[in-house]
Amino acid sequence: MRIAVDVMGGDHGPEVVVGGLQLALRQGLRPEVVYLVGQRQAIEAALRDCGLRADCFEIVHANDVLTMEDKPVQALRRKPDCSIARAMELVARGEADAVVSRGNTGGIFAAATLKLGRLPGVDRGAIATVIPTPERAFVLLDAGANIECKPVHLVQYAVMGSVYAQEVLQVSRPRVGLMNIGREDGKGNELTQEAFRLLKRTDLNFVGNIEGHDLFVDRVDVVVCDGFVGNVVLKTCESLALAMFGMLTRELSRNFKRRLGAFLASNAFRSLRRRLDPEAYGGAPLLGFRGTVMKAHGSARERALCSALMITAETVRHHVRDQIGERVATVNALLAEVSASEAPVTS
Amino acid sequence: MRIAVDVMGGDHGPEVVVGGLQLALRQGLRPEVVYLVGQRQAIEAALRDCGLRADCFEIVHANDVLTMEDKPVQALRRKPDCSIARAMELVARGEADAVVSRGNTGGIFAAATLKLGRLPGVDRGAIATVIPTPERAFVLLDAGANIECKPVHLVQYAVMGSVYAQEVLQVSRPRVGLMNIGREDGKGNELTQEAFRLLKRTDLNFVGNIEGHDLFVDRVDVVVCDGFVGNVVLKTCESLALAMFGMLTRELSRNFKRRLGAFLASNAFRSLRRRLDPEAYGGAPLLGFRGTVMKAHGSARERALCSALMITAETVRHHVRDQIGERVATVNALLAEVSASEAPVTS
Repeated sequence: MRIAVDVMGGDHGPEVVVGGLQLALRQGLRPEVVYLVGQRQAIEAALRDCGLRADCFEIVHANDVLTMEDKPVQALRRKPDCSIARAMELVARGEADAVVSRGNTGGIFAAATLKLGRLPGVDRGAIATVIPTPERAFVLLDAGANIECKPVHLVQYAVMGSVYAQEVLQVSRPRVGLMNIGREDGKGNELTQEAFRLLKRTDLNFVGNIEGHDLFVDRVDVVVCDGFVGNVVLKTCESLALAMFGMLTRELSRNFKRRLGAFLASNAFRSLRRRLDPEAYGGAPLLGFRGTVMKAHGSARERALCSALMITAETVRHHVRDQIGERVATVNALLAEVSASEAPVTS
Repeated sequence: MRIAVDVMGGDHGPEVVVGGLQLALRQGLRPEVVYLVGQRQAIEAALRDCGLRADCFEIVHANDVLTMEDKPVQALRRKPDCSIARAMELVARGEADAVVSRGNTGGIFAAATLKLGRLPGVDRGAIATVIPTPERAFVLLDAGANIECKPVHLVQYAVMGSVYAQEVLQVSRPRVGLMNIGREDGKGNELTQEAFRLLKRTDLNFVGNIEGHDLFVDRVDVVVCDGFVGNVVLKTCESLALAMFGMLTRELSRNFKRRLGAFLASNAFRSLRRRLDPEAYGGAPLLGFRGTVMKAHGSARERALCSALMITAETVRHHVRDQIGERVATVNALLAEVSASEAPVTS
């Protein structure tokens, strides 16, 4: 695997990205080439800090950075020499297989769209995110790229999420659920009603409509919804889990008896945290593009970046990109047949 | 207060409703009249079971029940003598002030719409739900009644939620947030962009766009969104909280040391559960109707029903219905002025 790592952006400096890379190399990541994309001086300093030799990596200098405040599309035009654009160009030119970045999500998405382009047949790229549950995890998409979806987009998301769940999360025949306000057929708005009808026609393991209550009870492996709903669900889950851990910590430290109890049971809390830790799943893949793109959290530190790099390698190794291309093409063909057979006969 | 209690529907029998009523009377509920609406024999049996005298209550016989499977509007036509319809009729005729039911939510909403009607100026009724947070709680609406909203509906929800938060949750100047996928002005889809613009013009304490991350950090008291998003948020929160409690319980019982720790810290867990218990807020008010309507959870038992009855009494005592009518009228007038002043001059 040849990987382009966007060293800029995010809440912490380049040394954290380089540290994450170092961790991944220690854990067995064996890339053929690692491109470190960003400001050369900052990268060289980070390599020195980590005690890594610069000649083991290809430094690709980029003068600019997309900040969190930048409006993605405009900023990419205004800053052609920004690190995320340069990283995508490496993939576009066939010099790298994958990009990992913890920068501005909108910026990464826009750069993937403009520089890589979508796979043939894919109408919209998606941000997928892996949400841990007590049993395992599910892939939620779209998590915010495309807020005005058409039914066919949701079907394509279902295909992309299924491929990712199968290949990277190792779920055989991933169960696909359509996010809705009730389980009964015919529930929901125009978008979900039509998407339901289309999903029924595919060869996906479509389990039907699901509602919020189904998310954490091991009923689905892939959840599809428009980017508005997906973004709200993702952030709501993050916020509630954090709030509950925070409350628990405060309650447990309120007096000596509770602190003693918490100390004795500390492994239980650690285990809970570990199982609900989204970092274990390495970041959010951007799916549907002509290259592998992984978005790490803006606040990611070494461990999370290492995890993102490892998962990126898995995504490349399992040919997720190509499989998405093939399976979307198949589903598109199927839906075209269905729609032709349903068209009114005009003779 | 004169209250009509729908004794039918829900997961448990009429004796649970009567038990809840008994609890509320012990806790100081002082209604002028309590109508128990449902099958007379079942009600009489439940009263006997609880040791209550039938002559303290007005039994209003209704032959039918809306089940969870019933399609609301059709079922109301097919079952004119169902308990929820009879209960609403008591309010419509001015014989009761409020209805409490734990039946089919869609059925209660449809009965409120058909039998009571909306307040003048209110375009859509809403299901509001109170979601607890570490600090306090916020009112989320709409939680699923109206999935294809117009911007003006969201503005009216904001007014209704503010009145409820102020009067029943006792929040002065409730902070209203518009559920969105980011905080910046101009974020979101057409619905939220236009709703944002309108909300800015009102005299509400509108804090702007909020995202999922803002829900549990004491940033808002009222969250407005369309019924699709609201339903998903509500059920996702319920599901995740339940899953986390379940995992915690399992982890804490895994070995003796953890069990001992859990025993010592048990007050901490109790406190956490109590603070995140939605039953403390007594149910979901249906707002915007010509009467007070409270939906208790289908699985509600005595304590939750008692809480729903107490909150219903507060809602009536604080004239929430009339205040909503007045404030929606004011906001409608304001928006009409704004829209007139923005209209292109055609001369």
